[in-house]
Amino acid sequence: MQKIKLGILGGGGDSLIGVLHRVASFINDNYELTGAVFNPNWEENIGFAEELGIPTNRIYKDFDTLIEEELKLPKEERIQVCSILTPNFLHFPMAKKLMENGFHVICEKPMTNTYEEAKILADLQREKGVVFGLTHTYTGYPMVRQMRHMIANGELGKIQKVDVRYYQGWINPIIHDKEKRSSIWRLDPEKAGISCCMGDIGTHAFNMVEYTTGLRVEKLLADLNYLYEDNKMDIDGNIMLHIEGGVRGILRSSQIATGEENGLAIAIYGSKKALKWEQENPNRLKVMSDSEPMQIYTPGHAYLSEFSLDGTKLPPGHPEGIFDSMANIYLGVARAIRNQNPRSGEYPTVIDGVRGLNFIESAVKSQKDGNVWVELDKQD
Amino acid sequence: MQKIKLGILGGGGDSLIGVLHRVASFINDNYELTGAVFNPNWEENIGFAEELGIPTNRIYKDFDTLIEEELKLPKEERIQVCSILTPNFLHFPMAKKLMENGFHVICEKPMTNTYEEAKILADLQREKGVVFGLTHTYTGYPMVRQMRHMIANGELGKIQKVDVRYYQGWINPIIHDKEKRSSIWRLDPEKAGISCCMGDIGTHAFNMVEYTTGLRVEKLLADLNYLYEDNKMDIDGNIMLHIEGGVRGILRSSQIATGEENGLAIAIYGSKKALKWEQENPNRLKVMSDSEPMQIYTPGHAYLSEFSLDGTKLPPGHPEGIFDSMANIYLGVARAIRNQNPRSGEYPTVIDGVRGLNFIESAVKSQKDGNVWVELDKQD
Amino acid sequence: MQKIKLGILGGGGDSLIGVLHRVASFINDNYELTGAVFNPNWEENIGFAEELGIPTNRIYKDFDTLIEEELKLPKEERIQVCSILTPNFLHFPMAKKLMENGFHVICEKPMTNTYEEAKILADLQREKGVVFGLTHTYTGYPMVRQMRHMIANGELGKIQKVDVRYYQGWINPIIHDKEKRSSIWRLDPEKAGISCCMGDIGTHAFNMVEYTTGLRVEKLLADLNYLYEDNKMDIDGNIMLHIEGGVRGILRSSQIATGEENGLAIAIYGSKKALKWEQENPNRLKVMSDSEPMQIYTPGHAYLSEFSLDGTKLPPGHPEGIFDSMANIYLGVARAIRNQNPRSGEYPTVIDGVRGLNFIESAVKSQKDGNVWVELDKQD
Amino acid sequence: MQKIKLGILGGGGDSLIGVLHRVASFINDNYELTGAVFNPNWEENIGFAEELGIPTNRIYKDFDTLIEEELKLPKEERIQVCSILTPNFLHFPMAKKLMENGFHVICEKPMTNTYEEAKILADLQREKGVVFGLTHTYTGYPMVRQMRHMIANGELGKIQKVDVRYYQGWINPIIHDKEKRSSIWRLDPEKAGISCCMGDIGTHAFNMVEYTTGLRVEKLLADLNYLYEDNKMDIDGNIMLHIEGGVRGILRSSQIATGEENGLAIAIYGSKKALKWEQENPNRLKVMSDSEPMQIYTPGHAYLSEFSLDGTKLPPGHPEGIFDSMANIYLGVARAIRNQNPRSGEYPTVIDGVRGLNFIESAVKSQKDGNVWVELDKQD
Repeated sequence: MQKIKLGILGGGGDSLIGVLHRVASFINDNYELTGAVFNPNWEENIGFAEELGIPTNRIYKDFDTLIEEELKLPKEERIQVCSILTPNFLHFPMAKKLMENGFHVICEKPMTNTYEEAKILADLQREKGVVFGLTHTYTGYPMVRQMRHMIANGELGKIQKVDVRYYQGWINPIIHDKEKRSSIWRLDPEKAGISCCMGDIGTHAFNMVEYTTGLRVEKLLADLNYLYEDNKMDIDGNIMLHIEGGVRGILRSSQIATGEENGLAIAIYGSKKALKWEQENPNRLKVMSDSEPMQIYTPGHAYLSEFSLDGTKLPPGHPEGIFDSMANIYLGVARAIRNQNPRSGEYPTVIDGVRGLNFIESAVKSQKDGNVWVELDKQD
Repeated sequence: MQKIKLGILGGGGDSLIGVLHRVASFINDNYELTGAVFNPNWEENIGFAEELGIPTNRIYKDFDTLIEEELKLPKEERIQVCSILTPNFLHFPMAKKLMENGFHVICEKPMTNTYEEAKILADLQREKGVVFGLTHTYTGYPMVRQMRHMIANGELGKIQKVDVRYYQGWINPIIHDKEKRSSIWRLDPEKAGISCCMGDIGTHAFNMVEYTTGLRVEKLLADLNYLYEDNKMDIDGNIMLHIEGGVRGILRSSQIATGEENGLAIAIYGSKKALKWEQENPNRLKVMSDSEPMQIYTPGHAYLSEFSLDGTKLPPGHPEGIFDSMANIYLGVARAIRNQNPRSGEYPTVIDGVRGLNFIESAVKSQKDGNVWVELDKQD
Repeated sequence: MQKIKLGILGGGGDSLIGVLHRVASFINDNYELTGAVFNPNWEENIGFAEELGIPTNRIYKDFDTLIEEELKLPKEERIQVCSILTPNFLHFPMAKKLMENGFHVICEKPMTNTYEEAKILADLQREKGVVFGLTHTYTGYPMVRQMRHMIANGELGKIQKVDVRYYQGWINPIIHDKEKRSSIWRLDPEKAGISCCMGDIGTHAFNMVEYTTGLRVEKLLADLNYLYEDNKMDIDGNIMLHIEGGVRGILRSSQIATGEENGLAIAIYGSKKALKWEQENPNRLKVMSDSEPMQIYTPGHAYLSEFSLDGTKLPPGHPEGIFDSMANIYLGVARAIRNQNPRSGEYPTVIDGVRGLNFIESAVKSQKDGNVWVELDKQD
Repeated sequence: MQKIKLGILGGGGDSLIGVLHRVASFINDNYELTGAVFNPNWEENIGFAEELGIPTNRIYKDFDTLIEEELKLPKEERIQVCSILTPNFLHFPMAKKLMENGFHVICEKPMTNTYEEAKILADLQREKGVVFGLTHTYTGYPMVRQMRHMIANGELGKIQKVDVRYYQGWINPIIHDKEKRSSIWRLDPEKAGISCCMGDIGTHAFNMVEYTTGLRVEKLLADLNYLYEDNKMDIDGNIMLHIEGGVRGILRSSQIATGEENGLAIAIYGSKKALKWEQENPNRLKVMSDSEPMQIYTPGHAYLSEFSLDGTKLPPGHPEGIFDSMANIYLGVARAIRNQNPRSGEYPTVIDGVRGLNFIESAVKSQKDGNVWVELDKQD
């Protein structure tokens, strides 16, 4: 099968997100890295390409040049899809221009800086019919897919309670020192937008709720936490969720949860069964019920859904991890590009991005208005 | 040492709470079961005493007779302390009359049906100078005591976030059937008071927050969950907490968390360290920090506080459980009765009861008023 | 119901084993502590009784006096059963004399110092028809009883592999210092018999194998570990087991497993299912099979055997511990004394003691003879 | 940096080992897949190359042709290293011919069918000076590297006990059916050599012991398990190890451990500290000592060794898995090929292969001779 020609924007040098995407693109043998603008600095850009050992003839000096030059190439040689790994404020203009010129897009989150921009991208994607993948990495885990499958399949009965948490501790060593906290870009509203914790990781938790349950959050009430008066960005918070069908939810997110690493976890309680999953131990899914012993599902077993099994390459007990999860999303995008009818949920879409921005802006609004309910829009 | 003469009110037959208190009173060799009214039905009352193999001469036909007859006895033979294990609505009148007559009291929670009653008991206890122990059982675990010690000792630095959960699933098999849910006393406001979930278990979670941190909750905002319109009692809910010193908290409690058994858990994040503990695995305490590996504290080690060690009888690796936790509270009450200066926190007091009722009424008020902040009183 | 009159030999002062037995005897309301020789020193003996707050008229100056005086009492007032908690070398003469005089016996392990003595006790017990309970405490856990039930019930199919471990670390801080290791009684063959590690804890592991599987070990091959030439007692070792029916087993035991607390654990693999259990987290039993998800059994659920449920007092999620486990054994003995037909396995018997001594002597012989197979006897 | 030209032998179609190696080779951007013989069947061979989307001009019809044709190419275009993923009996001739012709080798385990062959490869490797990497995948995990580092660094003090386990259950559904067990190649000595369980996975456990401790096993005593008389291959067994310096070890391995997935685990007890690690949860390392709380090390932290950190690409809490572990080994081989002085232990060498075969043959000999001690050779 012809590999899909992939371009990468950003992600050069020591960029962690760069490694994650590059490796994910290789894993299922679907993509070849064809061109890139790894870095606005030309020497670092070309130097990184050489370090990777890839041909440098399609390393471009900037994004506009990449578009211009690639369009000159015959369609079968041209980059088909670009992964946007640049600073957040560039996501919107790049994604927009890529789609306008007929390229497919893979975009890191947050998709845009504002809800308005997000809606523009959604309209454009619908108009152009290109594939748009948003890399909510955690939805690629086999056990997360199993959750989505089981709920869609009715195995939990009616969902009645959702509890999601995303706790990190990395801002704790920074926040208590006035100088440090005033110099970090993540806490500078000019550079990082209106929200730190909710924008960066709360949105993953929000997405996990909607991804697994298939239900939309209808409104939210946020209590955000800033710790110091001179700090203008939320670094922690609790958000009550009212979800369609009368489901109640609670979302907790923090970047000052001292000692926590990357603690995304979700518990979903239905009238028949319940599910519990933690990102830091992603290959175990707890399945609970009123009267039966708790079961521990692990990847690669015949008792799992096809959708879950599709995301596992090795037999049970051979732990796959976050690269493999991201690779599953890249595989979904590849199938979409090849018109192979990927399953619903194989990759997060532009709509997930729109939802995420709607969530972030609503959370901040709820806080500003005094911890009151704010309704989310109903995207179709 | 002379054993303390213990009376028991309620707790006969198959009563689980009866076993728990009786065994707890034996464990540290401090009490002798001297008299009781196990049951309003005389035959069951006396039958149970015989089944236990205890002398029946001080098994009384009712509470008033017990008071009357015991007061006739010389002081050194008289029951010194009574454990109240009766239905909730009897807690208040019994505790009141006991204190008025100079008896010490051990009382199951909720201490009373209303906040008003609770304050009356608190005033009376102060006036009479008797010992009043409220059995928030979970505060007797050695690792919970270690948490309280470490926080008081400043090891966590400034507390910045508290996250507590108490999830059970036992109402799930009942709630979805209209007939069942309308016939259970727990869901009948006439019999069970104004709250089910928050009154029964949310209050344990609330107590755990104040017990471990030593901080008072200042206000709360509740989102309670009833699932069905005809159900008038909360069976699940999320409560935002604002705690003194600008600390933010979140309390989650449920009795429809399908498959959960008795899932009380707390995480406390400070500027220096964090603590995580779960009741279902009570002999492990996670201690976390920004830069060091997570540590697992277990009971009985020299690195623990004296207060924690005092609650462990056997060497490390010999799991003690909930009976031993309750026994630690009974031990604290015994020391108080004997004027042996128990440590602060060795047993929950009437003030913990007052706080609990203030919490329950505030949570229900917040819900009724549309999920708004409600301030708690500052008990001294 | 009349309580059973219990005498205690040893276990005074700070004795941990004393607390464990005393509390266990109270828990199910079956015993009353009637008489004792807590300590050979009269002042400590009587002082301890006073500290416990029990009547001192039947605290005797020594064991022989206890026998003599109790026999003078009318049968209905007399001590019925004695718990032997003295140093090991006294177990045999005390148990012997007690049985000869018609008393029931509860005995700590090791039952005797030698296999020969053990067999004498077994013969005597058979002859006298008294009840003899050996306190292999861990067999009282509800999940251990569930294992025994499931295997007897055929749920595992044919057993094919057993793996048992008992790791402690407490000798590690002692063994590397010549002076320390030569002054501890456990490492003195004069005082502690022929084996340290296997005699003290290996025998628990051995008992766990035979208790859960219902199968007898036929022969063993031991590789014992002494670490230093001047140390004459095993402090660690691995033992291969050939079990009846062609089952293979491995037993690992250590007291120099640095950092381990009380790590008894067993895994049993059958042709249909497998079971895994750990003493330090005793309320979880893993049930595994080829094709189904792993299940976690926890106490108190309707899906458990009656035998397991009989050992749990509170609902699921209320952790009971080692005191409750020992109390279940005391309950079994009580039922036997009352002729209430306790289930097989409700308490370990004199035969378990005989097996244990046969195991210890065989292990030491295997080591002395150069790690060769040694056959165990077939007790009936 | 120029990528290293990689050839692959075997691993076509659905081969799991093929995916594992291919992905591992991509992950750190060091290799390009240049040529291959994926399959002896030409159509499947070329078809698979097309499916992967790689150029087919250097897909060869067989191994000899690959050697022949590659040697015709100028050195800078030629394949530098070949990964041998073929059936076991081909490892020896292929590795031999590759080295004789100056190619570097990456070889799956078992390295050869016999100890004799293994020694021939070792001699040849020394003579030719090529790089020879043996893919004991599990040694690439960051936490395994941390164990090796800590022990080499003296943090555990003197090692005194090693306990390693490798339990799988996949043969259980096969072994009890005579027809099934006689038709599987793994249980056919003609096809699979002298050992099934020890050859296939016991050897990983053995390697883990020597890799982490840096100590050589001196002799072993094996008790192998066949379950049925007509089964000629071990499918389970226990092996006692005497390790240099008087260290005692126990190795347990099984393929009939019902319900186990891929349960490799090791515990190492030293005079100062102990370590415990499990492959199925590879990102947690337990560090224990006599007096301090247990610590949980996780990847990516500053408290870890450089060697461990080198094997982690993402920040703490982003679980990497078995592909990343294998990729670390490929990285070590790449550094060796590039003369970049890889650390000792960055990749297993031909000597590890020789040790493994010595182990397997010794285990089988010990069993045949009646469970007696067999000495291993001292490879230098």
